[in-house]
Amino acid sequence: MLEELKKRVYEANMLLPKYGLVTFTWGNVSEIDRESGLFAIKPSGVDYDKLKAEDMVIVDLNGKVVEGDYNPSSDTATHVELYKAFKNIGGVVHTHSPFATSWAQAGRSIPCYGTTHADYYYGEVPCLRCLSADEVEEAYEENTGHLIVNEFERLGIDYEAVSACLCKNHGPFTWGKDGVDAVHSAVVLEEVAKMALRTETINPKVAPAPQYLQDKHYYRKHGANAYYGQKK
Amino acid sequence: MLEELKKRVYEANMLLPKYGLVTFTWGNVSEIDRESGLFAIKPSGVDYDKLKAEDMVIVDLNGKVVEGDYNPSSDTATHVELYKAFKNIGGVVHTHSPFATSWAQAGRSIPCYGTTHADYYYGEVPCLRCLSADEVEEAYEENTGHLIVNEFERLGIDYEAVSACLCKNHGPFTWGKDGVDAVHSAVVLEEVAKMALRTETINPKVAPAPQYLQDKHYYRKHGANAYYGQKK
Amino acid sequence: MLEELKKRVYEANMLLPKYGLVTFTWGNVSEIDRESGLFAIKPSGVDYDKLKAEDMVIVDLNGKVVEGDYNPSSDTATHVELYKAFKNIGGVVHTHSPFATSWAQAGRSIPCYGTTHADYYYGEVPCLRCLSADEVEEAYEENTGHLIVNEFERLGIDYEAVSACLCKNHGPFTWGKDGVDAVHSAVVLEEVAKMALRTETINPKVAPAPQYLQDKHYYRKHGANAYYGQKK
Amino acid sequence: MLEELKKRVYEANMLLPKYGLVTFTWGNVSEIDRESGLFAIKPSGVDYDKLKAEDMVIVDLNGKVVEGDYNPSSDTATHVELYKAFKNIGGVVHTHSPFATSWAQAGRSIPCYGTTHADYYYGEVPCLRCLSADEVEEAYEENTGHLIVNEFERLGIDYEAVSACLCKNHGPFTWGKDGVDAVHSAVVLEEVAKMALRTETINPKVAPAPQYLQDKHYYRKHGANAYYGQKK
Repeated sequence: MLEELKKRVYEANMLLPKYGLVTFTWGNVSEIDRESGLFAIKPSGVDYDKLKAEDMVIVDLNGKVVEGDYNPSSDTATHVELYKAFKNIGGVVHTHSPFATSWAQAGRSIPCYGTTHADYYYGEVPCLRCLSADEVEEAYEENTGHLIVNEFERLGIDYEAVSACLCKNHGPFTWGKDGVDAVHSAVVLEEVAKMALRTETINPKVAPAPQYLQDKHYYRKHGANAYYGQKK
Repeated sequence: MLEELKKRVYEANMLLPKYGLVTFTWGNVSEIDRESGLFAIKPSGVDYDKLKAEDMVIVDLNGKVVEGDYNPSSDTATHVELYKAFKNIGGVVHTHSPFATSWAQAGRSIPCYGTTHADYYYGEVPCLRCLSADEVEEAYEENTGHLIVNEFERLGIDYEAVSACLCKNHGPFTWGKDGVDAVHSAVVLEEVAKMALRTETINPKVAPAPQYLQDKHYYRKHGANAYYGQKK
Repeated sequence: MLEELKKRVYEANMLLPKYGLVTFTWGNVSEIDRESGLFAIKPSGVDYDKLKAEDMVIVDLNGKVVEGDYNPSSDTATHVELYKAFKNIGGVVHTHSPFATSWAQAGRSIPCYGTTHADYYYGEVPCLRCLSADEVEEAYEENTGHLIVNEFERLGIDYEAVSACLCKNHGPFTWGKDGVDAVHSAVVLEEVAKMALRTETINPKVAPAPQYLQDKHYYRKHGANAYYGQKK
Repeated sequence: MLEELKKRVYEANMLLPKYGLVTFTWGNVSEIDRESGLFAIKPSGVDYDKLKAEDMVIVDLNGKVVEGDYNPSSDTATHVELYKAFKNIGGVVHTHSPFATSWAQAGRSIPCYGTTHADYYYGEVPCLRCLSADEVEEAYEENTGHLIVNEFERLGIDYEAVSACLCKNHGPFTWGKDGVDAVHSAVVLEEVAKMALRTETINPKVAPAPQYLQDKHYYRKHGANAYYGQKK
């Protein structure tokens, strides 16, 4: 079972350079096996072109390494918190993809300017506040996870309808039903971030897409009445 | 005949990733056989790297699937309306190509700033209004087709001289004499959209190219006195 | 001799897609044999991936086709005028490369903001006025050539020190000692145009580089005291 | 020993085109052997696709060529000064990478807007003043080296904590423990420069990341308490 999980997580990690989302080692993917409560994650600081499936590190929901020769990603504690709070997700991704990170650095949520965004995210992709000095000092990566979870609750955002967020001055986290699905969200987010910047350059006074159009596109792809794609 | 049509439409669809116009499944090409009134179109939500010629779906001008194992593109009803109203076209393309979509999200028509634009489109590429809530609710994709047709008529734009439009908050549709030609227009539109954005950044007070220069370039390539290219 | 010239011009043309300077057929390279007064040029509207060396068209300095099965580039008359007036050049290039074309559409000369520019061009790359309606009507391509030649003379620009110009609302022409060298200038121009746009975005009040630095870099690579590169 | 050094420097140079940092010959990498005081550097103006390991030029710390058939990079004297003053570095890189060069042309230091920057550079990447006319006239490349060294001292910047600078109206220099490490810094700088431009476009009033977050990320990767990556 763990070998299969490692292989899946390795393959999901290799999608990050394929889609142009990472420079050097600036990104990581994990996927959890909900039955055992164990997840596999990329080792910290290992180059993508040297990475092998067996290098993936197995971690439990206390953040303890269960198997593996390497240190897990330095962001492991963030992944743990997301898995603990967002019960229906199976994969988590962190990158420094350039457009999404630019929005995070700018400290702005990404407005929904069109159907490309509405097809995947219901409403804006939130940019969450920076951690305080105390939160950073105490437990930086773990508190990043708490922040995401708490802010989604405070803002009333359904994590299944918005599978991405921006951490201010840092970069994006995304999630999904498994590792590949979380990467999918990371790719969409980068495209949406790119288009939103250009949209505002073309029309600095632009407003978000009408709510009814956002609803139409979101529910065309999600929920009981979805009709995009093939029946499964 | 249908096998040949499917093959052509498959090949035209595969040009979209080749030219960098699509991410994931965000685009579709169709081509019609005017004699039989049947067109082939990409199946909905199928990945481009798994797509095969036999997966293309055959649809009639009532939007009914005549042959094929998959659901046709969710935008099929829009293609139907364009084929019904624009009698001389043979192919239709929809993408979310990033620069054209940014103009659509910004809600602005693309001005003709130079000969790259004038070589292909006579005058600006119009950004059409968003559908109303009622129009979306009633029949979103079909009404998108009606909107394009009606707005071209209302604005007095010849669909053969401007083979592209932007749907506000959504993205571009393009057309042509066949599927490949419609893809050609989608590529041109993306280049023109990219350059227009940069042109305005370099000179925020820029005006469109003089009408006589637009005329010269358009008629150098189109109509009875065209002299660009080779005699056919 | 002509076969060799065709081969060279074919290879120089194929550098345009290699360096990302052309979409479809939007560009052409020619090279002249000064002894015979004949030049080879790309045929009009032929796709780069179907182009062969034998397709190149041989033209004389009256613009007459001497050899070849195809129509020469529609811009041939412009090439003729440049060869006639700029006695020391051996190659000419026209493209619609996206950043240089954006400056041309914006109607602005490219200021010399740094040594990347100064290494190749002595002073700004001029954006020349649009042709008048009469000039377009009378002989568009030939008058484009006259305009370049006359404006360089009027502005006191040495065509050997600035091997590039922008035609307003159109795009760049570049030249060099042969076809490959003219392509080289087209690549440099695109880089310089890209950086100049970004430079102004980063600092809207930026001034050109000091003249003494421009001099230093230009003369480090050109003229009797050049010391960049290898002795030849 | 020298053959090994040449090979290493050749390979580090070939990373520049791989990472998209150079057009034509616009960049160079050197690496020093501290024991002998000799360094290998790219020959001046030689195309990357014709470059071979044996073409590297061996130079001493007086800037004299000790071995090699070619002229060394025209920037050699700058490398010499950096090696003489920055005792702990083993490699130096100069490029005209487009985003970093745009900041240099704009005459602005790159603010630290997020953790991507803070992971590598402690504080802003400084843009140093242009050399004076006298400094350029007297010894351009050598004085570029003096300027970098003197300005880092005057500004109180630790060259080991900020392994990069921008030379106004010119471009970036970076350094590291060896040639590959200096290239690494050049890649990071380009990404950071790209994101900083976009960050300011998205939010023109953006402020740098809080100091405590910069500290956290810098010391997560550097110094005695670093925990990013694998134990070595």
